[in-house]
Amino acid sequence: MNISMSDLYVSRTDRDAAIIARQDPVVYEEGAFADALAPEQLEAYRKDGVLLLPNLFSEDEIATLNNELERLCTDPSIASREEAIREPDSDEIRSVFAVHKLSRKLEQLARDPRLIHVARQILGSEVYIHQSRANMKPGFDGKEFYWHSDFETWHVEDGMPAMRALSCSVLLTDNVASNGPLMVIPGSHYQFIACQGETPDKHYEKSLKKQEFGVPDKLSLEFLADQGGIRQMTGKAGSVVFFDCNLMHGSASNLTPWPRSNVFMVYNSIENTLHSPKYDLEPRPEYIATREEFKVLKPLDETALAY
Amino acid sequence: MNISMSDLYVSRTDRDAAIIARQDPVVYEEGAFADALAPEQLEAYRKDGVLLLPNLFSEDEIATLNNELERLCTDPSIASREEAIREPDSDEIRSVFAVHKLSRKLEQLARDPRLIHVARQILGSEVYIHQSRANMKPGFDGKEFYWHSDFETWHVEDGMPAMRALSCSVLLTDNVASNGPLMVIPGSHYQFIACQGETPDKHYEKSLKKQEFGVPDKLSLEFLADQGGIRQMTGKAGSVVFFDCNLMHGSASNLTPWPRSNVFMVYNSIENTLHSPKYDLEPRPEYIATREEFKVLKPLDETALAY
Repeated sequence: MNISMSDLYVSRTDRDAAIIARQDPVVYEEGAFADALAPEQLEAYRKDGVLLLPNLFSEDEIATLNNELERLCTDPSIASREEAIREPDSDEIRSVFAVHKLSRKLEQLARDPRLIHVARQILGSEVYIHQSRANMKPGFDGKEFYWHSDFETWHVEDGMPAMRALSCSVLLTDNVASNGPLMVIPGSHYQFIACQGETPDKHYEKSLKKQEFGVPDKLSLEFLADQGGIRQMTGKAGSVVFFDCNLMHGSASNLTPWPRSNVFMVYNSIENTLHSPKYDLEPRPEYIATREEFKVLKPLDETALAY
Repeated sequence: MNISMSDLYVSRTDRDAAIIARQDPVVYEEGAFADALAPEQLEAYRKDGVLLLPNLFSEDEIATLNNELERLCTDPSIASREEAIREPDSDEIRSVFAVHKLSRKLEQLARDPRLIHVARQILGSEVYIHQSRANMKPGFDGKEFYWHSDFETWHVEDGMPAMRALSCSVLLTDNVASNGPLMVIPGSHYQFIACQGETPDKHYEKSLKKQEFGVPDKLSLEFLADQGGIRQMTGKAGSVVFFDCNLMHGSASNLTPWPRSNVFMVYNSIENTLHSPKYDLEPRPEYIATREEFKVLKPLDETALAY
């Protein structure tokens, strides 16, 4: 295996698990795109790697988004596409990828000033969508997502060079403590957890259902959780959670009758576009990681909001 | 199948799922053994079917109990017994049954005045231990327990006649919202959810790992949860949760590094001892359901507490 010595974040080799200090800023070039967040909000994001903005979207907007998602999941031409990922043990749709390409309303959501202005401010540049996704965690048997750093996967499997991306999760249902909300380890974005084990080709076909590689080790997780604690990102539908690409996160199973659905938009800096994947891995499909065209996303005119 | 018409709580037949109103009191013969709970605590238990008493045991006592459990789980002569139940996907011990018989310290716990006096007061009679159990939900991959009413199982598989039993769960670690605490539906103890599907013999061998029969249907669960909400019984180590035998409860997976361990003692009224199981099922083993001798349990002398 050919490991470039210039790789700051080496992972998935035959070496032991390791904790590597973050080499990149969390908030970039402050001031260039500064208008969405107040200084104390930006400071909280820098420190914790996560920020919840309550009630950013109205009930009507959320109803529209839920209807749109319902339409996507029941449209046979979409449900049969590879973008639609099913639960491991059932036929229920767990995630739909590339929703900003499958739906005009969700493309508008990606360009919504309430989201994209925050992304531009934190990343200090123009941005594009690296990945978008709707996660439906159905009631009664919504499965857990084990702990992971998105960046670990994006760096290894997609060739994302630096930690200059963020996710935002728009809560489409009330996320309460008991229905499997996003759990994060505040402050964990300052540590890169190098994972053990080489990645097989076409790993993504399985990993979207159940992660087996790029899994952080228990000792590192214990270290992070003892330092930063664990925060459940609960909030009403319409709230939005912004979080750093290297924040350790996961979510428990959902036994309640109440579905937990979110739309994720991953904004990457246009100055951080993808290289080749590590270790000569085959690039993941376009619907999981944008690679064909890194197209700067322009904020929607405030007056053009149609949902 | 021979269904007795005198069975108030028929379940696991070829009939549809059904909701049957509770025919038994929740608090029995008030006054006969009244000394442990205040009237408002008793009233809360009657209404919700659950009551948490914070910090009933001291840190020292909990440390002693944890050490004792650690000893049981690592003692090869105990770990190899059928009382020790393992996780479905690993060798880790998930539960140990009949702990009050395997350990003198846990037998003392069962007779601790702080527990047994509450049980006697609520059940209005002398009591005995129907079942005792330590549940270890290990960090990182502690599995979920799906929704169930204990009484549904005890009635069908053990032949327990009436709803005159309760569980108490002594929290041996901090139970927080994120590490898979006990979840209950307050008020659900007033409804008996008859489950669909006949029970195969020796069902318990599987059901202790993963329940497949005696599973309440989704419509009934939705009805109960919409009425009563879902409460996570979080509390510090040393707190105790008392709950009615027919309360709908479950718990989500534990992804945190923090184990969630509890000791359960199930007190049954000495006036409610077991009949034969329904449908000519073979009785479950003695370590799961006491049947050989219904021995009244006497409270420990307050001065004799050795842990």
